[in-house]
Amino acid sequence: MTKPNTAERKDLQPLPEARTEQVGYAVLGIGTLTIDELLPAFAVGQRSRLAAVVSDDHEKAVATALAYGLTEADAYDYDRFEELQSRDDVHAVYIVLPNSLHRQYTERAARIGKHVLCEKPLAANPEDAEAMVGVCAEHRVKLMTAYRCQYTPHHWRARDLIQNGKLGQIKLIHSVNVQVEPNDGQWRLRDGLAGGGSLLDVGLYCLNTIRFLLAEEPSSVYAQTFSTPGDERFEEVEETVAWQMTFPSGVIAHCSCSYGAAHARTLDVFGVDARLTLDPAFDYTDLRLTVQTPETITEHRLPETDQFALEIDHFSACIEEDREPFTPGEEGLQDQRLMAAIYQSAREGRPIKLEKIEKKDAFRGSPPSQDFAERA
Amino acid sequence: MTKPNTAERKDLQPLPEARTEQVGYAVLGIGTLTIDELLPAFAVGQRSRLAAVVSDDHEKAVATALAYGLTEADAYDYDRFEELQSRDDVHAVYIVLPNSLHRQYTERAARIGKHVLCEKPLAANPEDAEAMVGVCAEHRVKLMTAYRCQYTPHHWRARDLIQNGKLGQIKLIHSVNVQVEPNDGQWRLRDGLAGGGSLLDVGLYCLNTIRFLLAEEPSSVYAQTFSTPGDERFEEVEETVAWQMTFPSGVIAHCSCSYGAAHARTLDVFGVDARLTLDPAFDYTDLRLTVQTPETITEHRLPETDQFALEIDHFSACIEEDREPFTPGEEGLQDQRLMAAIYQSAREGRPIKLEKIEKKDAFRGSPPSQDFAERA
Amino acid sequence: MTKPNTAERKDLQPLPEARTEQVGYAVLGIGTLTIDELLPAFAVGQRSRLAAVVSDDHEKAVATALAYGLTEADAYDYDRFEELQSRDDVHAVYIVLPNSLHRQYTERAARIGKHVLCEKPLAANPEDAEAMVGVCAEHRVKLMTAYRCQYTPHHWRARDLIQNGKLGQIKLIHSVNVQVEPNDGQWRLRDGLAGGGSLLDVGLYCLNTIRFLLAEEPSSVYAQTFSTPGDERFEEVEETVAWQMTFPSGVIAHCSCSYGAAHARTLDVFGVDARLTLDPAFDYTDLRLTVQTPETITEHRLPETDQFALEIDHFSACIEEDREPFTPGEEGLQDQRLMAAIYQSAREGRPIKLEKIEKKDAFRGSPPSQDFAERA
Amino acid sequence: MTKPNTAERKDLQPLPEARTEQVGYAVLGIGTLTIDELLPAFAVGQRSRLAAVVSDDHEKAVATALAYGLTEADAYDYDRFEELQSRDDVHAVYIVLPNSLHRQYTERAARIGKHVLCEKPLAANPEDAEAMVGVCAEHRVKLMTAYRCQYTPHHWRARDLIQNGKLGQIKLIHSVNVQVEPNDGQWRLRDGLAGGGSLLDVGLYCLNTIRFLLAEEPSSVYAQTFSTPGDERFEEVEETVAWQMTFPSGVIAHCSCSYGAAHARTLDVFGVDARLTLDPAFDYTDLRLTVQTPETITEHRLPETDQFALEIDHFSACIEEDREPFTPGEEGLQDQRLMAAIYQSAREGRPIKLEKIEKKDAFRGSPPSQDFAERA
Repeated sequence: MTKPNTAERKDLQPLPEARTEQVGYAVLGIGTLTIDELLPAFAVGQRSRLAAVVSDDHEKAVATALAYGLTEADAYDYDRFEELQSRDDVHAVYIVLPNSLHRQYTERAARIGKHVLCEKPLAANPEDAEAMVGVCAEHRVKLMTAYRCQYTPHHWRARDLIQNGKLGQIKLIHSVNVQVEPNDGQWRLRDGLAGGGSLLDVGLYCLNTIRFLLAEEPSSVYAQTFSTPGDERFEEVEETVAWQMTFPSGVIAHCSCSYGAAHARTLDVFGVDARLTLDPAFDYTDLRLTVQTPETITEHRLPETDQFALEIDHFSACIEEDREPFTPGEEGLQDQRLMAAIYQSAREGRPIKLEKIEKKDAFRGSPPSQDFAERA
Repeated sequence: MTKPNTAERKDLQPLPEARTEQVGYAVLGIGTLTIDELLPAFAVGQRSRLAAVVSDDHEKAVATALAYGLTEADAYDYDRFEELQSRDDVHAVYIVLPNSLHRQYTERAARIGKHVLCEKPLAANPEDAEAMVGVCAEHRVKLMTAYRCQYTPHHWRARDLIQNGKLGQIKLIHSVNVQVEPNDGQWRLRDGLAGGGSLLDVGLYCLNTIRFLLAEEPSSVYAQTFSTPGDERFEEVEETVAWQMTFPSGVIAHCSCSYGAAHARTLDVFGVDARLTLDPAFDYTDLRLTVQTPETITEHRLPETDQFALEIDHFSACIEEDREPFTPGEEGLQDQRLMAAIYQSAREGRPIKLEKIEKKDAFRGSPPSQDFAERA
Repeated sequence: MTKPNTAERKDLQPLPEARTEQVGYAVLGIGTLTIDELLPAFAVGQRSRLAAVVSDDHEKAVATALAYGLTEADAYDYDRFEELQSRDDVHAVYIVLPNSLHRQYTERAARIGKHVLCEKPLAANPEDAEAMVGVCAEHRVKLMTAYRCQYTPHHWRARDLIQNGKLGQIKLIHSVNVQVEPNDGQWRLRDGLAGGGSLLDVGLYCLNTIRFLLAEEPSSVYAQTFSTPGDERFEEVEETVAWQMTFPSGVIAHCSCSYGAAHARTLDVFGVDARLTLDPAFDYTDLRLTVQTPETITEHRLPETDQFALEIDHFSACIEEDREPFTPGEEGLQDQRLMAAIYQSAREGRPIKLEKIEKKDAFRGSPPSQDFAERA
Repeated sequence: MTKPNTAERKDLQPLPEARTEQVGYAVLGIGTLTIDELLPAFAVGQRSRLAAVVSDDHEKAVATALAYGLTEADAYDYDRFEELQSRDDVHAVYIVLPNSLHRQYTERAARIGKHVLCEKPLAANPEDAEAMVGVCAEHRVKLMTAYRCQYTPHHWRARDLIQNGKLGQIKLIHSVNVQVEPNDGQWRLRDGLAGGGSLLDVGLYCLNTIRFLLAEEPSSVYAQTFSTPGDERFEEVEETVAWQMTFPSGVIAHCSCSYGAAHARTLDVFGVDARLTLDPAFDYTDLRLTVQTPETITEHRLPETDQFALEIDHFSACIEEDREPFTPGEEGLQDQRLMAAIYQSAREGRPIKLEKIEKKDAFRGSPPSQDFAERA
């Protein structure tokens, strides 16, 4: 790629790769997330390009293709999914479908040799997640769980502050992720499609981000679920989950998620020397990171970034450089196992002990800080 | 009392009662809380005056008396406590002693016919608390638990917003109260004097304030305790308690308290329509009350008040007007029982069911809003 | 354009126009603003597309073209500017050049029949600005001043609150826009290229936004300039300008701009009933709009948007629908005249009376709210 | 004074002086400020006590005396003011009267040998202020202007940050102090009693605090006044004043004050490296001090203090230790002269040059940090 002349100013951001050299993606599913977030993310991504869209709404697929600089020939139905095999400019698929379909399309993509970036949760249950990890390994394609919050400057700053001891030893964490889920016929309230309720969708952020920040795995969980009696949204899936996790280092974490409370996404870490707050903690924009000591309350100013572009570009970098993604299938699988334990605790009304895992970042691959190393 | 001429401006705050007509208090114990907060609170209180101090440090007692406009004769040793009986200008005692001494001095005060305002927790255990309620009833003196946070404009505004449905149905509450307790030989780390660790001292704020805000009683608790291995501060009492409470209305509350994390005191209430935050939630000054909806984040500006003066003046009003305090001994006793259940859950590693209590504000007396009714 | 099927969810954002139907732009100048902001803005714009780039750094122009999905043939040198005339897919030019070149390229664009979107300030002086308005009128092409802050949700909410009387009568405004300008050989510190110092670059935001919010024109100005003695950055242009403006309605505005103070961009409006604050007021992201009354401090949550995309799409809508842009050349010209008066006041050390202008929004065209009217 | 036993905890706040050893004050005037702020301030002050009250409302004076622990004999009429001479326990008077009466009572107090603490502004005009300084010097009593904001932890922290270069060189300051003054027959809207409008009452805070923070004196001012036509509150005194000040160091300050806009009190300092904000800047409680750099926004947590008690105790310390107050009469006189120049500029419509003053803190005495030096 021809490098732009950056001599004019030293802080000049490098231009992205030429379009023809970027990693090409077929996006599966054109719902709200795809339209509002992912298509714009591809547009600003540095190493990734939209190459095809797949939907069973052909008209929408064609409109999407034309709007984002593709042609009608780049719009596929699911029946024609395997035709993507012959597309040399499609290196990977991005699965943005109901949870219960993640496994099927991961298997189909792996069989035609395409890498898989899969929306969270990785699957509707641990068994599917395990199968997905297996099939991708078998076919030697990469699998990444789309954990946006392990790629942002805010979450990395928080992790660095914690891991570098800036808060002192961590004692407690509280995290909340709640929203009002509309009863609009979406798949999220159907157990057969989602595999669970608020835990799999929003609660997963609390669980996953705490594991990321601490770099360790919980040793036990205790949970309760609650659904408002008579609320027809919650006939198949749960409204609210409240759980505690203990970690080998002694940290106790309190988490809550719900489909029944006004939008709020928070994370508070309490250490011996300071308290760290992300509030909002999981929004797409405007994350606020604050550190409080007895003397000061300090908000860290970090660049506003396109979180989805960061995440997708990381996968592209891993494909180009043949590295393991930071959040591979194994990372998503571990969360599925923990969520299964949370549900079990709530069903049985007792704390559940978990398998001991000593290794730090036991399920993670190469960090995103390496993405730009060889390009610098 | 001669009323001041308030015709000049309609917002003119009435002058306090003449000193000689105010309710007189003997303060028992001259530690940090007394010196930093309670003596200034008496100085600005409208209906209450300091009349005597009791300490086994005679020199300190005399210095305190002189500094606050009393004479050497107003300084007592504990041995001479019963001499207060003849002091007609001492209507009540304010007990600011280690928890394990609350019962003894409540009993001695009741026997000499003095009303009792007792620092929280009411006692070191439920049995003592129950005995205190009994002896005060027997001797027809009033007993009030000094729950500062049930008397401030911020906590009442929060309660009103919740009870009036301004947040919609409440789904979840998170509350944290942590501080670093120094190892300075104070009684708080001695089980024999305190009766417990961080739960009885700081965790009680979470417990008590949530009960106050919801006006209902929890139906079950699940708890864990944790003390950092090898930390000699926590040989007798626990460092950290993390517990969940469920309420009959379906609310689930997550609370954490600790003697091992940097000062933080928070309370977050998540409703269908809005989130209410008190942060700081339990500090002596600068409380901040915020309500977030999807459209706005609104901080309520409320007057900065002397919280201790409000609390003491409420007890004085109840004495003058023969009303039941809003936080009588029964309110403090209920918290002792709940804290005992929290400890039991942590010991036994299982959730504990609690007795069903249907009545709203089951353990509370006349609200502080009545204090000024007849004076208006 | 084929409409996407939006039946699935009523809040579904419409897909942008097909690329081939969008208004095509040639961007003149590939500096930091172009690379960091404008190219990504075209990528997410709904009605606008990048069609060509013009630079005298050919290598950079080609790299830019390839990175944004164009071909080598879409990269032009300034000498070949007039070749754009034959490009039917280039409807407009976006001028992102030093101020002193705005006039020349506006004239060249008008002569080849291309509409002109010009970065602020419109020109290096009022004479150039006036000529630019004239030449575009003569050749019947549209001219828009790129005033980003007249297109964001935050600034429009502020304007609506003021114009609808939500703050009561406005009495005072304070606004500050300061940054540390590096001495890096850029054209901004060269009088011959910039036409002035901090006033034309950052101070213009204060001036222009206050006029926009009040919808009226100032009746007098008083100003001072200051440059730190010996600071070689300020040998040709001024460091700091501090000025007062009075408005016919009685509002007095205090503004300050500087190239010598740490990044801050604020705007405060003081009304009889409330105070409105934008802080930051002029940043590209994370604008915060707050309204304070005696009872509450309320932050308005507004969507995070790409401000440049909003601005460019407005011009595209005006081109497609043949409407006058909200910030046409005349709007930019008025600011040039006011800035000339500010400089005159500072030179002469006395207040300057300005021509009386009665009409509301005297220099503005059709508001951006109309852009989507016929598409709804 | 007998010192309390502080061995128990090292952070134990010392008890105040015994009442009988404190400096005794007669308060002149029992309006809102006295009732709401000053009487409580005496109650918590460490070195100061209320010894007498003076009012022409005898009933109110007696009620006040009784409420604050004095007797009926401590309530005086103005006619009997000179009887205070014989009161050995009255060392000073605190004048809380309309501005035009400050001079008369300062002269009467000086003649009977009492020190004078005078509310701001020092007088209704520079001539009166000068006479007050003279008469106190002649009678060898101390005179202090009651500039609360030169005694708080927040304002001192701000001054230290500025003076120690933590913000880099200061370039600009903006400060606003506005409130809605009710038309309630108070003296503040009567020119004969107040000597001016919003400038003397609230604008003085901006002026005085900026001088304090910079420790230098302005070299020129330019000002405008504005009163809403037809608003009967502003027939005698001005509603709004907006002025610019330049300082020898190159700082330009923009200040605004008004009796016609909703309560707001702000101060912003813009330096090369950081911006410092006090918002609110001049309230009695809840001051917030923030420092912003490109990387962080840091709120400094400082103790909530009784600002009036700090101010009064400083004067008491100066009396006890025979030191010059930090804000003596000369400090108040300088502000009167500057306010006269501001009015002159507004009348004449031109900037006014001021006398050059080289000395730092030219009109200030011993800093409050010395108050506790010999007691430590």
